[in-house]
Amino acid sequence: MLQSTLFGKTLREPPRDDQSTNAQLLQQAGYVDKLMAGVYSYLPLGYRVLKNIEHIIREELTEIGGQELLLPALHPKENWMVTGRWDGPDPLYKLEDESGHAYALGSTHEEIITPLVKRDVHSYRDLPLALYQFQTKFRAELRAKSGMLRGREFIMKDLYSFHRDEADLARYYDVVKEAYVKIFKRCGIGEETVLTFASGGSFAKYSHEFQTLTAAGEDTIYLCPTCRIAINDEIIAEQPNCPQCKADRGKLIEQKAIEVGNIFSLKTKYSAPFGLTFKDESGTEMPVLMGCYGIGLGRVMGTVVEVHHDDRGIAWPKAIAPYDVHVVRLGDSPSVVAAADTLYADLRKKNVSPLYDDRDLSAGIKLKDADLIGLPLRVVVSEKTMSAGKIEVKRRIEEESNLVDGLEALVAQYL
Amino acid sequence: MLQSTLFGKTLREPPRDDQSTNAQLLQQAGYVDKLMAGVYSYLPLGYRVLKNIEHIIREELTEIGGQELLLPALHPKENWMVTGRWDGPDPLYKLEDESGHAYALGSTHEEIITPLVKRDVHSYRDLPLALYQFQTKFRAELRAKSGMLRGREFIMKDLYSFHRDEADLARYYDVVKEAYVKIFKRCGIGEETVLTFASGGSFAKYSHEFQTLTAAGEDTIYLCPTCRIAINDEIIAEQPNCPQCKADRGKLIEQKAIEVGNIFSLKTKYSAPFGLTFKDESGTEMPVLMGCYGIGLGRVMGTVVEVHHDDRGIAWPKAIAPYDVHVVRLGDSPSVVAAADTLYADLRKKNVSPLYDDRDLSAGIKLKDADLIGLPLRVVVSEKTMSAGKIEVKRRIEEESNLVDGLEALVAQYL
Repeated sequence: MLQSTLFGKTLREPPRDDQSTNAQLLQQAGYVDKLMAGVYSYLPLGYRVLKNIEHIIREELTEIGGQELLLPALHPKENWMVTGRWDGPDPLYKLEDESGHAYALGSTHEEIITPLVKRDVHSYRDLPLALYQFQTKFRAELRAKSGMLRGREFIMKDLYSFHRDEADLARYYDVVKEAYVKIFKRCGIGEETVLTFASGGSFAKYSHEFQTLTAAGEDTIYLCPTCRIAINDEIIAEQPNCPQCKADRGKLIEQKAIEVGNIFSLKTKYSAPFGLTFKDESGTEMPVLMGCYGIGLGRVMGTVVEVHHDDRGIAWPKAIAPYDVHVVRLGDSPSVVAAADTLYADLRKKNVSPLYDDRDLSAGIKLKDADLIGLPLRVVVSEKTMSAGKIEVKRRIEEESNLVDGLEALVAQYL
Repeated sequence: MLQSTLFGKTLREPPRDDQSTNAQLLQQAGYVDKLMAGVYSYLPLGYRVLKNIEHIIREELTEIGGQELLLPALHPKENWMVTGRWDGPDPLYKLEDESGHAYALGSTHEEIITPLVKRDVHSYRDLPLALYQFQTKFRAELRAKSGMLRGREFIMKDLYSFHRDEADLARYYDVVKEAYVKIFKRCGIGEETVLTFASGGSFAKYSHEFQTLTAAGEDTIYLCPTCRIAINDEIIAEQPNCPQCKADRGKLIEQKAIEVGNIFSLKTKYSAPFGLTFKDESGTEMPVLMGCYGIGLGRVMGTVVEVHHDDRGIAWPKAIAPYDVHVVRLGDSPSVVAAADTLYADLRKKNVSPLYDDRDLSAGIKLKDADLIGLPLRVVVSEKTMSAGKIEVKRRIEEESNLVDGLEALVAQYL
């Protein structure tokens, strides 16, 4: 992509009306634009990051048998009355049409997927089943803050699983747990993300969250330094020991963290009100047991920025970076332009995705923008590097640049 | 994909509450499920078709310089007041939050993208620009009918282009027109889809629609049989001749058609109220000229079904079919099961995507389902085909099946 034509300019200053680091950097670097509090547009760079995260999640969920579908955002009130959630606890956006029918904008989809599955699942042969979607959700948050971490409109991956008994639900629950570990690792926050025991609501002793350790977090967790397992402060009173090694509360470290994923054992919480049952081998009607598993994609993006940035800007992990390498042309002499154009074309031939800063701007502005945008690798083409017969390459996370002999060496050593 | 585990069963009868052929077949075959009038869930098969259509559109729009982004669905009332469209003509879903702020659910995105572009476009150097998204739109249709053709919630591709003068807008308008021709051709409705002159509104003499000829269409158009160009009946009084060969109204053929795409020259209709201007080479502030270009993805899916079906079911064009081939196992003897399993595995190794009917059901039901689901190719594995040492293959659009020698012959001759 030629940066001269890329939509989404970098801003000289971070926006003043967003205090969180992720929202400031993502806006300043041209990834997102704020339409209103808690509602952001994804600009081309941000949309590429979003799609990369989506791609990773889709691969891992396909691997564990998830089938992708897409449910509506507009829900009839009747479905939410069945579960009693029309009036909370989650704040729903509600609307009425001219004929007086009332709707909610979906903040989650148990009220839609449960009756849908009821249409098709009748026998033990139809189970287990795992269905997921990437979908825009809405939450009527009056005070949306924290940038991409808590929006009023946001994109979620929500997976729902359906089982014949608790053993099978528990089995799949662990399968998803493992898939989540892989997802967060591939997104570049594996080291900072810890499995956290949280409240299970009325149907299970615990649920599990994936919490990413960062001072920007809204949640407080207590981390066992030995096991890297944590306890959410909402249950620390009832569960004051590490669930694994039983270390007591004094050994646990209080940390701020962002919940990037959660997994719930719903059991019959939604299948019961919707009458979702199946016939077992003996013909007996049994309740279907459910699990649900969420990941907020914008939240993952914001969390990665909170974890991977410095004073100069973002430092994307390779797997979700919008482009692999930033080719920065310094100077506009015909020979420099020709060399940079060639490098850009050659990288594309090698299936590397480059962002090419072909703009006629000062070296200072271009290098500053490269740091702000934060691609994993920066390659500078200038009179200086050309006279040395070299390409200058620098990783975003390192301070020092290096000279390599040419394209082949660049690809072999860095890509 | 194993059909025994695929979510979305075929129905014995088409649903009674949907009269349109597309909605009946798509529901009966397990592609979509109706949540309420005009609002459908995409089941796994339907979601794959949707993604195939999206992929084709994305490739063609990338080819013409379109940059993909994603705008919000929740719009502040203020933006729609600027253009005067808060109160029509399109029926908007409107809502208020507890603090009294009013919002619309986007039925289109001129009100969002115009101020967004204003943030970044200041100079002639920033133009032209083409931005698009795949996005869920909402329209408060009181009488949603026609199945996937006219929804209350639906997925659109909307492209917006920005230009310095009318000549450049006209140039790009033609570029998009050509891209649309390619898109509809690739989606399998190229032959049935004709460029149609329609009302241009207050800012241009004409807009252009892509209308697909089918008796199921809601629109009436007058087609010139020589030029394959049509005139929408809304302007037939003022434009009674073929715009190309000037054939008079008596020569034009009245046809029913579905509008699958449209392109509008908006000129300054939205840039003027939002003050979207640029400085030309002389430093003079000039208005930006806009074009907008839509394709409804669900509508394309429904239209393809209207065009490509028979009494037995759907007949998907290869490029958008959910799977390439339907492997149908008839019988459950160990040798048949082993042969069908092997064929399924071998096809996947050859990067063919098969749907494998591994269900223990009668031959009658399985062959009926295969016709209903409508993959382009059906391969039958049975005692009979095995004893002949052959594979039985049939194209959905042909009546006769053929015997081929084995996998290599199947792939070479049919895939």
